[in-house]
Amino acid sequence: MIVVLTGGTGGAKLVEGLAAVIDSADLTIVCNTGDDCIFHGLHISPDIDTIVYTLAGVNDADKGWGMRGDTFTTLEQLRRLGNDAWFNLGDKDLATHITRTRLLSEGQTLSEITATICRALGVRSTILPMSDERVETFVKTPVGEISFQEFFVKERWTPEVLGVRFAGVENNRPAQGVIGAIRAADAIIVCPSNPVTSIGPILAVPGIRDALKKADAPVLGVSPLIGNSAISGPAHKLMIASGWEASAIGVAQYYKDILDILVIDRTDRHLASQIEQLGIDAPCTNIRMNSPADKARLAHEVLALRQK
Amino acid sequence: MIVVLTGGTGGAKLVEGLAAVIDSADLTIVCNTGDDCIFHGLHISPDIDTIVYTLAGVNDADKGWGMRGDTFTTLEQLRRLGNDAWFNLGDKDLATHITRTRLLSEGQTLSEITATICRALGVRSTILPMSDERVETFVKTPVGEISFQEFFVKERWTPEVLGVRFAGVENNRPAQGVIGAIRAADAIIVCPSNPVTSIGPILAVPGIRDALKKADAPVLGVSPLIGNSAISGPAHKLMIASGWEASAIGVAQYYKDILDILVIDRTDRHLASQIEQLGIDAPCTNIRMNSPADKARLAHEVLALRQK
Repeated sequence: MIVVLTGGTGGAKLVEGLAAVIDSADLTIVCNTGDDCIFHGLHISPDIDTIVYTLAGVNDADKGWGMRGDTFTTLEQLRRLGNDAWFNLGDKDLATHITRTRLLSEGQTLSEITATICRALGVRSTILPMSDERVETFVKTPVGEISFQEFFVKERWTPEVLGVRFAGVENNRPAQGVIGAIRAADAIIVCPSNPVTSIGPILAVPGIRDALKKADAPVLGVSPLIGNSAISGPAHKLMIASGWEASAIGVAQYYKDILDILVIDRTDRHLASQIEQLGIDAPCTNIRMNSPADKARLAHEVLALRQK
Repeated sequence: MIVVLTGGTGGAKLVEGLAAVIDSADLTIVCNTGDDCIFHGLHISPDIDTIVYTLAGVNDADKGWGMRGDTFTTLEQLRRLGNDAWFNLGDKDLATHITRTRLLSEGQTLSEITATICRALGVRSTILPMSDERVETFVKTPVGEISFQEFFVKERWTPEVLGVRFAGVENNRPAQGVIGAIRAADAIIVCPSNPVTSIGPILAVPGIRDALKKADAPVLGVSPLIGNSAISGPAHKLMIASGWEASAIGVAQYYKDILDILVIDRTDRHLASQIEQLGIDAPCTNIRMNSPADKARLAHEVLALRQK
């Protein structure tokens, strides 16, 4: 059994690759929920949904979020009714949020609801939120704290970042099954998601980092950075704001206590020896995933490393 | 100022006619909320919405509910996710329910929310729920009580009806503005809606029936029945089940304490003298409203009666 820690877009590419090269039922995927948000009174779990839609084969790979071929009729009408509608929600996608919100209000956990949605969409992997309790990632900017979605979507990650806070995380527990999956895993893969705001919240849930440190299975990461920049999104910006170097070395330092191996881009091969000095193997390959073939090839290469 | 008491479909036709012949800003429309229901965790007010959409010019007149040209993408996906989806909710229509549900959860009243939606859609009439507190119409059948929407939509009004109950109505108050509007009205019009389940709940809200009895303005009704049958829907069936005759005479008896005039169909003109024995004038005309012209003509004729 392979355990995968992931956020949304970047991680979903590797998850898609993994599902293409092994039986997807052998994947347990622990998702960041720090980006979860409430819009129009609906509970939205963007990273869980991206992974669910990806494994269901209904994701919009071009946009990197939402469902393929979705329309935006309800959102346009919400805007007409005077609602703030900068967060894109497609009509099909809304069914997920409406279902989740209703089931949460009836007392079900996010884990239970995610399992229901997975079953309905034919997803055979186990998808777990990092926690069933609420964590909210806030980004500190010169004009005050804003939610991660305000920073990422509304402000298109342009504000200066002074820091990041995972509100409520210190009192949270991992969702049921997360620690057990890490203990029983044959390999643990840390996806090329944003270390600070996608993987960071997962590691901040009390008990998860410790379980990863003690895991028998190898912990294999893939760098989300090439050179000094993220492959997509603001990972480099958030790394620097949090006091880390924006490079594969910074990523290795960030994950120093949990990673056995960090797969870096071949153009970063000159950094391998410095990373190895941290006690982390740093094999090089092409880590860009532009096509389904790229995703499967990288997933295959990462999985091969677990035997080492 | 004209006050109108109405349910959904049948009443909306006359409301459309009224708005065509007088300034719609002079209409205060008191809507039944006994049919309100919760689907997918969303608060739906079918009669209010039918009237709002009608006055906004966005109603689907062919279907008699919902918005013209609406699509059902979210509903189809809700069904795919395992939700019970027999109640039709269009994508544009959903924006209304999502907005209402959020604002209710933030503590706004149904009246305030209805006013907001009216403003956003350019509706100049005042649309008031009969009450801001919850009333639920239940239909008693041989297999137990079901909600009005289950009876009307899911079961297509086929079950035998043993009675009707407006749960919670005895402790409710009229929404702010309802009693004042009735007192200040130049005329009060009772639409050709289902007397038992559309107008009945309005009259059951403590204070409303009494205000109508004491009103200075004439109270003018239009029969929803021609011969022994409703023009549309199950009014005759519910009249009989509640112990009333299914005819214009039964309608007159039902409304005996509040109506000054009941407009009946010209094919029912032989009933006029019996109705007049109840102290209610019974002018005859063509009360079917198949076209916008029919609606405006009937509205015009009804308004002309207030001068008498």
